[in-house]
Amino acid sequence: MYSQSMYEKGASPSKIRDLFEYGNRRKAEIGADKVFDFSIGNPNVPAPPRVKEVMMELLENEDPVVLHGYTSAAGDPNVRQAICDYVNKTHGTTLTKDHFYMTCGAAASLEITLRALTEEGDEFLTFAPFFPEYRVFAESAGAGFQTVACDPQDFQPDLSELKAKLTPHTKGVIVNSPNNPSGAVISPQTAEKLSEVLRDKSAEYGHPIVLIADEPYRELVYDDVTVPYLMNYYDDTIVCYSYSKSLSLPGERIGYIAVSDRMKQEREVYLAICGAGRSLGYVCAPSMMQRVVAKCQGLTSDVSVYRENRDILSKALTEYGFRVVRPDGAFYLFVEAPEPDAEAFGEKAKEFELLLVPSDSFGLTGYVRISYCVSTEMIKNSLPAFKKLAQSYGLCE
Amino acid sequence: MYSQSMYEKGASPSKIRDLFEYGNRRKAEIGADKVFDFSIGNPNVPAPPRVKEVMMELLENEDPVVLHGYTSAAGDPNVRQAICDYVNKTHGTTLTKDHFYMTCGAAASLEITLRALTEEGDEFLTFAPFFPEYRVFAESAGAGFQTVACDPQDFQPDLSELKAKLTPHTKGVIVNSPNNPSGAVISPQTAEKLSEVLRDKSAEYGHPIVLIADEPYRELVYDDVTVPYLMNYYDDTIVCYSYSKSLSLPGERIGYIAVSDRMKQEREVYLAICGAGRSLGYVCAPSMMQRVVAKCQGLTSDVSVYRENRDILSKALTEYGFRVVRPDGAFYLFVEAPEPDAEAFGEKAKEFELLLVPSDSFGLTGYVRISYCVSTEMIKNSLPAFKKLAQSYGLCE
Repeated sequence: MYSQSMYEKGASPSKIRDLFEYGNRRKAEIGADKVFDFSIGNPNVPAPPRVKEVMMELLENEDPVVLHGYTSAAGDPNVRQAICDYVNKTHGTTLTKDHFYMTCGAAASLEITLRALTEEGDEFLTFAPFFPEYRVFAESAGAGFQTVACDPQDFQPDLSELKAKLTPHTKGVIVNSPNNPSGAVISPQTAEKLSEVLRDKSAEYGHPIVLIADEPYRELVYDDVTVPYLMNYYDDTIVCYSYSKSLSLPGERIGYIAVSDRMKQEREVYLAICGAGRSLGYVCAPSMMQRVVAKCQGLTSDVSVYRENRDILSKALTEYGFRVVRPDGAFYLFVEAPEPDAEAFGEKAKEFELLLVPSDSFGLTGYVRISYCVSTEMIKNSLPAFKKLAQSYGLCE
Repeated sequence: MYSQSMYEKGASPSKIRDLFEYGNRRKAEIGADKVFDFSIGNPNVPAPPRVKEVMMELLENEDPVVLHGYTSAAGDPNVRQAICDYVNKTHGTTLTKDHFYMTCGAAASLEITLRALTEEGDEFLTFAPFFPEYRVFAESAGAGFQTVACDPQDFQPDLSELKAKLTPHTKGVIVNSPNNPSGAVISPQTAEKLSEVLRDKSAEYGHPIVLIADEPYRELVYDDVTVPYLMNYYDDTIVCYSYSKSLSLPGERIGYIAVSDRMKQEREVYLAICGAGRSLGYVCAPSMMQRVVAKCQGLTSDVSVYRENRDILSKALTEYGFRVVRPDGAFYLFVEAPEPDAEAFGEKAKEFELLLVPSDSFGLTGYVRISYCVSTEMIKNSLPAFKKLAQSYGLCE
């Protein structure tokens, strides 16, 4: 009566979601302030005040028939032009508005892109750790899915393993930088070398391997880190973007796909993206939010809160004896589990009311992810619990 | 390098869209007021004023982190409760909030539902004329697609043909009432008989045939017409709803799926819907719009404008000698072409700057669709052109 595989995806939501639900039950039992829920990547910093202002202005001044009406399937042309101008100015690209396709957020960007590219027998690669829905999206597009390791020292992609795993069936490689869950940002050197590998293999196979840059965390970086714009390194690049994290609008489902103007068959690929969006039931991206983001180009939620959280947590956890992956971006801290089984470590952490996501969910053993997009107060209050957790493993006194 | 079938769907947008684009070019050539564009079903009546008020209130009073944050994948529980209460009150159903799944509009509702239901070898039936994207959605879900005729007198489904075309592979039957493009509303008698046919055949095949009620036009009815709520006629019913037309919010992409509580395996079907939404990249329906529609239950855009347009047009066209299908609902007038080839009739109409969609796009020959969700002024100005068109066929003097 129904699709078994869809039922399974609906009946077994992600482990992250499970942990989040556990947290809610636990808060009801012992009080919200006693549970330190680091499970979910839901921004706690509000949208920039300009977002509200723009929404009020649009509601006051625009004809509601236009404001709430269908836009073209690819997005309102003026909206795409505004985003295009910003991207060209920021990254020195030479895109036109017709390289942009507005979407209902990053998940839609990715699923539409994979669906547009997939031919019979294709597969996609990504680097572990990775956002677990990638596998769901690849399967849904009818493609295979493989992972390649990262260097455990700096969480840069392992390019020798990539070379070994690329095959003539590899349609594309997904790079998520800054990375969920490791917080690592791909370095310019790695971007250059990765592009070389892909160029060589594309030449060898006689067809391009597409680089898919999944970049919802692009603006969430700290210190002097810059995030290479992969389109400038490799011609056959598609950028999947979302305003969920940069403007703290995750529920509003607004983002875009940008196809490089230097991509082979760029027009055909763009039209396949239009076709995939249509066939998945995406009529257009939410019309008012399209106008909002167009008027908020270059704005970012106050990342200083995330920076402070990151600094407090990584300093304290290092002090307590945990090994912390250097967190350059996103709002995740990736911490080595002090026992081989990260699931067991996660269970142990629960005893101290700390909800940490074991890295097994992200295709890697031995770590936990701490989402620090929470209040700084909660971070501070959680430190004694982290210390006790460390003590229970003999990491500190 | 890309999926050929997705490319084709992107490169050949619908004939309706083609005609709309032709209209825009033509308007640029001879002036917007000289072209009578009846091609697109984009509501011209603004959203009720309450929609703007609610949006302003939400922006002023709600925490932006919550207002714009992720909701649960199925939709905010309070939103689903509000909609559930309204549906139960209006239709006498006994649903709970957990029978509702919020979506990004009707296209998403349908694609998610078809994907959730489709097993290998399944097919869906609908009644012609039908909204052409149905075929795209069924193909995308991996299902076959068949059509069944309507009675050309009243455009009620032809149930003898339905009986003949149902097979053990029929997973579901899609009913669109009020209908795009005919404007016909399924009668209570037909709903009853249709349900009998489906019950009999379900018993014969040993598995339920699902009735999928696609109802974005439910509130757009005129005179004393009531639209039967199919869940009350047939247990295995799924309602696909959208606020695009009732609240004039087509660009905002907000709607829902409701699974009957009397459906066999209703919990499993609901979870398959959750899984299909996840796998298609729908993380949640736009969060602020969820709150808006929850607070606007029972409101409808001012349909008196559509009624006036319908009355002026159908009276005049009948007077000029055209045969007009009795338009009970939606904002479409379905008119018999005075020559066998509706495409040729559409081309002829263009000579008088009238843009009418030939019914071939809707799986039926011999008619054109007139979308009267346009200004009453344009309707009045278009009448001389319609009269000349009628004269050119010798329908009047």
